[in-house]
Amino acid sequence: MADIGRRARAAAHALALASTERKRRALSAVAEGIRAAERTVLAQNALDLADARSAGRPASFVDRLTLDPGRVEAIAKAVEEIAALPDPVGRVLATFERPNGLRIERVSTPLGVIGVIFESRPNVTADAGALCLMAGNAAILRAGSESFRTSSAIAAAMAEGIAQAGLPADAIQLVPVRDREAVGLMLTGLGGAIDVVVPRGGRSLVERVQADARVPVFAHLEGVNHVYVQASADLDMARSVVLNSKLRRTGVCGAAETLLLDRAAAGTHLAPLLKALLDAGCEVRGDEAARAADPRVRPAAEADWATEYLDAVIACRLVDGLDAALDHIARYGSHHTDAILTADAAAAERFLAEVDSAIVLHNASTQFADGGEFGFGAEIGIATGRMHARGPVGVEQLTSFKYRVRGSGQTRP
Amino acid sequence: MADIGRRARAAAHALALASTERKRRALSAVAEGIRAAERTVLAQNALDLADARSAGRPASFVDRLTLDPGRVEAIAKAVEEIAALPDPVGRVLATFERPNGLRIERVSTPLGVIGVIFESRPNVTADAGALCLMAGNAAILRAGSESFRTSSAIAAAMAEGIAQAGLPADAIQLVPVRDREAVGLMLTGLGGAIDVVVPRGGRSLVERVQADARVPVFAHLEGVNHVYVQASADLDMARSVVLNSKLRRTGVCGAAETLLLDRAAAGTHLAPLLKALLDAGCEVRGDEAARAADPRVRPAAEADWATEYLDAVIACRLVDGLDAALDHIARYGSHHTDAILTADAAAAERFLAEVDSAIVLHNASTQFADGGEFGFGAEIGIATGRMHARGPVGVEQLTSFKYRVRGSGQTRP
Repeated sequence: MADIGRRARAAAHALALASTERKRRALSAVAEGIRAAERTVLAQNALDLADARSAGRPASFVDRLTLDPGRVEAIAKAVEEIAALPDPVGRVLATFERPNGLRIERVSTPLGVIGVIFESRPNVTADAGALCLMAGNAAILRAGSESFRTSSAIAAAMAEGIAQAGLPADAIQLVPVRDREAVGLMLTGLGGAIDVVVPRGGRSLVERVQADARVPVFAHLEGVNHVYVQASADLDMARSVVLNSKLRRTGVCGAAETLLLDRAAAGTHLAPLLKALLDAGCEVRGDEAARAADPRVRPAAEADWATEYLDAVIACRLVDGLDAALDHIARYGSHHTDAILTADAAAAERFLAEVDSAIVLHNASTQFADGGEFGFGAEIGIATGRMHARGPVGVEQLTSFKYRVRGSGQTRP
Repeated sequence: MADIGRRARAAAHALALASTERKRRALSAVAEGIRAAERTVLAQNALDLADARSAGRPASFVDRLTLDPGRVEAIAKAVEEIAALPDPVGRVLATFERPNGLRIERVSTPLGVIGVIFESRPNVTADAGALCLMAGNAAILRAGSESFRTSSAIAAAMAEGIAQAGLPADAIQLVPVRDREAVGLMLTGLGGAIDVVVPRGGRSLVERVQADARVPVFAHLEGVNHVYVQASADLDMARSVVLNSKLRRTGVCGAAETLLLDRAAAGTHLAPLLKALLDAGCEVRGDEAARAADPRVRPAAEADWATEYLDAVIACRLVDGLDAALDHIARYGSHHTDAILTADAAAAERFLAEVDSAIVLHNASTQFADGGEFGFGAEIGIATGRMHARGPVGVEQLTSFKYRVRGSGQTRP
């Protein structure tokens, strides 16, 4: 592992100085390499799948692990899309002309070496590796043991493409899965070789990473996301946004988990929204008012307000106006994504200002919490911390900066 | 301590929503309060000074601790200057108009609660507290035990001013000095109550903070800063910049510690630069070429290349061109501040691009490494890490951001 760290640091040094054109050439070669390795990748994937099935892994797990020619092509295409992004390195973020004639620029630079720890989805190998490379960073990837053969085949194809473009093949390294201590070492920063760790996987992985990491982490533990509906919200709009926020996909971190409704909207919005959710097959756990509005609503317990179901279940509660909604979100939320549905512009602005979440929305679905939907091209994850990166973490947030000062012999008095 | 954390978090919530005008009003009241408390502050300072002298503290320590009416006025004035800075909160950092009509803004927000651990300079109480407040953050300050009475008097005056403006007096809290465990607790984040720690003091303090902190740290351990001179550099310019970089103040982190000179400049620049330094009273520790150029130069040992003297001492070495200079800086530098002196624009651009330091300069003194000189108004410190803040940490770097999304009922397909 120490050797992997040293090689990553050396690769990061070369990547930091690589031109946009060379990084794009490398990623094009990577995409072509993945396509060319399709047979090998699928053969290794078949071995991983056979093991997963004989180990009795659930169908959802097997699905995440499964590749087919279409999915391999999608992986290659995603790499090409990352190659087409604007280069996040070398942007002039600010300039300061000083009275003494010094010209000072804040310029974006790569972060360094990024450790990515993921579970079953083998496409993360290509996605995360390509995002790190486009931002001039080296990546150390730790795949789940169940997807290791598939990830290895993808990583080998990537390394070849990178080397073809004249960049170090060590730019993207996969940690040997046999090394049981690898995750622990990565979380301590591998002796200064890793600058930041990104966990990609379920709650238990993120929890362990956040608890044990001695280096910065870009992550979110959960998305207990709220949709708060006021009486002035157009009912049809509210219905479609609530349904989409909860049910478009129930397993994503941007899915809504709690519906808050102003008591003033109880007579107009409550029953229709509950009916829409229940008719669509969603379980609703509500307070007394919600249960009175529809007999299919089950009683909510205190724990429901803080639960990320990741399933077709929603908690529902009436609140006494905006302040009560803000209090509820501050108490039970997870600083991920929260939405207000209202025609009251002042209330919307207060909600957007006061809710302390990475993403706050007015009259739009919480399911837009996604780097692609933000126009970032791709994301390595969504972060709920306040340090460095927050919200969808795209290539821009995988950079740091430095100051370039140009003078003509100035000295400080 | 847990209570201090809870109160800071509550204060941070209120500060995050405070208007620019209210923050300015609070800081004006703080400045007036410090002026009004001059007698109390000086009386407490006299007690601290008496203890420091009877404990046999060195003169430099006593000087850093000493206040007089002029210094109290300077502290108040510095707070007013911070109040006059542009509000770093609420800036729209980027906007994204999406094809579906969503308008997405990245808007700056406060970081939260900032822990500042400092030693003898009591003015840090006011400086750091005011910077945190202007950026909408609560501050938990840990003063050195030797300056505690002075810092307490200043903090009390500040709390009164803050409360007068209708902001929570807990916005700036001073940790009781009796609590020996306070620093350790702050470094673990005080149970989630502290978002980032800033150490202000000597090497041993920063070393301990960097080693033990479980929360992010904005700091630099040392500034082993280089001035690299090429043969094309104007000699008079080089002489004045080298002298200024080393000797303007030898105890600041932006002072130069190593002079690198191209071998091609040995015949033209070496002897005059050494003579200027030696004549000005600077000790020079050099390689063989430097010793041959001036008999007053002492031999440099390997350790000299990695030493931050913070004194009138400089290491000097000849290098074989730009690549060798870059290698030397990569090997021995501390990623703080490095300068190239040259008339070769291409060499300067390569140096600015390739040296991985927070601040890189062309034809200017390393002593410009300072938030005030950058136009930031004030700084809480200088950071050499790559996460979140780098270089002089002013009010802007004491902020985070969030995404505000405004829609008209959009749902995600």
